[in-house]
Amino acid sequence: MDFAAWRVARQDEVEQALSTWVPADAPAGLGEAMRYAVLDGGKRLRPLLVLATSAAVGGLREAALRASCAVELIHAYSLVHDDMPCMDNDVLRRGKPTVHVRFGQAQALLAGDALQALAFELLVPNDGSVPSDMAAQLCLLLAQAAGATGMAGGQAVDLASVGLALDLSALEAMHRQKTGALLKASVAMGAATGSVSPEARAQLGRYGAALGLAFQVVDDVLDVTSDSATLGKTAGKDAAADKPTFVSLMGLAQAQAYAGRVLDEAHAALDQSRLDDTSHLHALADWVGRRAY
Amino acid sequence: MDFAAWRVARQDEVEQALSTWVPADAPAGLGEAMRYAVLDGGKRLRPLLVLATSAAVGGLREAALRASCAVELIHAYSLVHDDMPCMDNDVLRRGKPTVHVRFGQAQALLAGDALQALAFELLVPNDGSVPSDMAAQLCLLLAQAAGATGMAGGQAVDLASVGLALDLSALEAMHRQKTGALLKASVAMGAATGSVSPEARAQLGRYGAALGLAFQVVDDVLDVTSDSATLGKTAGKDAAADKPTFVSLMGLAQAQAYAGRVLDEAHAALDQSRLDDTSHLHALADWVGRRAY
Repeated sequence: MDFAAWRVARQDEVEQALSTWVPADAPAGLGEAMRYAVLDGGKRLRPLLVLATSAAVGGLREAALRASCAVELIHAYSLVHDDMPCMDNDVLRRGKPTVHVRFGQAQALLAGDALQALAFELLVPNDGSVPSDMAAQLCLLLAQAAGATGMAGGQAVDLASVGLALDLSALEAMHRQKTGALLKASVAMGAATGSVSPEARAQLGRYGAALGLAFQVVDDVLDVTSDSATLGKTAGKDAAADKPTFVSLMGLAQAQAYAGRVLDEAHAALDQSRLDDTSHLHALADWVGRRAY
Repeated sequence: MDFAAWRVARQDEVEQALSTWVPADAPAGLGEAMRYAVLDGGKRLRPLLVLATSAAVGGLREAALRASCAVELIHAYSLVHDDMPCMDNDVLRRGKPTVHVRFGQAQALLAGDALQALAFELLVPNDGSVPSDMAAQLCLLLAQAAGATGMAGGQAVDLASVGLALDLSALEAMHRQKTGALLKASVAMGAATGSVSPEARAQLGRYGAALGLAFQVVDDVLDVTSDSATLGKTAGKDAAADKPTFVSLMGLAQAQAYAGRVLDEAHAALDQSRLDDTSHLHALADWVGRRAY
């Protein structure tokens, strides 16, 4: 199947699964806020990484689908909390009012909290459809990526870095946690749904890390080259907030070239993994490089 | 060992374990905020429930200690978020300024998020010291208790109920989620660290549910009979916020009598469980009934 058809089919599958698993019946409007935060939006890059990696290692489909949704729930909750007034105070996300604008801050806070819990709940089906050792390993990978040494830690560094003159290595270290940890975990979780040699696992780790870094460099480029309508979120906000970015440190042309070199490394890692079918993982790297929003 | 000595020894053990596991080195002050939220405070009721239940079923000690800390981390994160201005806007907790007062709202939000992730990370040690099937089951129990149909859902109902005339059954249903789910899960997680008959498991569930309800009734009583210095948090705030409570619905004397009847049921459930040594679980129920803060 060619990449575009595969991607659309997997995006539909993930949307369907999320719609089934994110509860409509959670009390007092909480379910509505959770579904608003998760459904009908996003590129689903993280789920696609889980599913493509799982396919490359002959992984268990049920585990891969659950892992892909779990990672997306963690991503979605982080956006809900990140958009709140005490953080980035953003009013637009995926072309819609942010969750706290639509439902109030208290409900946004709770919806984010409940989405994180749901992510872990999904990883352990009580019908035995995912072996316990695999479920436990997926929980561990996701928890490490989401927590204080991963995404949440990177956000704390990001908060503390406003107005500071970070150098390139400090900026990369921050993004390795803030966005990179969850992207890399998406690949690692996909690998954990099947069996894979230590060498292939190491190369997949290198691929995930490179893809995570490239994603952020492209994000910084888009923040200055695109507009809010295309992005579905507020453009130009990094510069407005006086946040260090790859563009502010390197200049636009250099940042674009840097994204290309990092993606070359992602492709090289896949080639060296000696896995049979990495075509969709290659295509996802290209997709990250070419994305317009 | 008598209860008081057992309790102090277990509280010390939990404090020590939390101090080891809640990272001091998380970046940009995040670790400091997480440790401030968790260490040196609280009755550790939930950890004690895990440990006493685990002991009653001959459970695995390493799993029980990790589960006891995981439950406490979920409890601690919920307090951090609950105290924020967009929720209860509380400035005093365990006799200290709340996390957002001390570290700012953004850091409080992130610290709560990172504590939730850490709870799940603790349940899956990567040294194999907890069997995978047990670790996965503990993750599932904790996730269900913390999420949209548990604690977070109960908080949403609580938010929506301010100023409403809830009847007793609606109030109980709200608390069964908001505080009851995590207390009941503490017992269930303790049971999951060992082996237990279906009948004993059912009676432990009844015990956990009764203890959770009694805890909340006593909490409402203390809110009107105690003061902020004794409670370590703001007294009288339920009445000030026009929130329905067991005292506002039943009156003070009736609420106190009701707590006693519910605790009788907790004791009866333990007797009917036919487990060998439930003395500490009995004592914990008494402790909940007698507590002054």
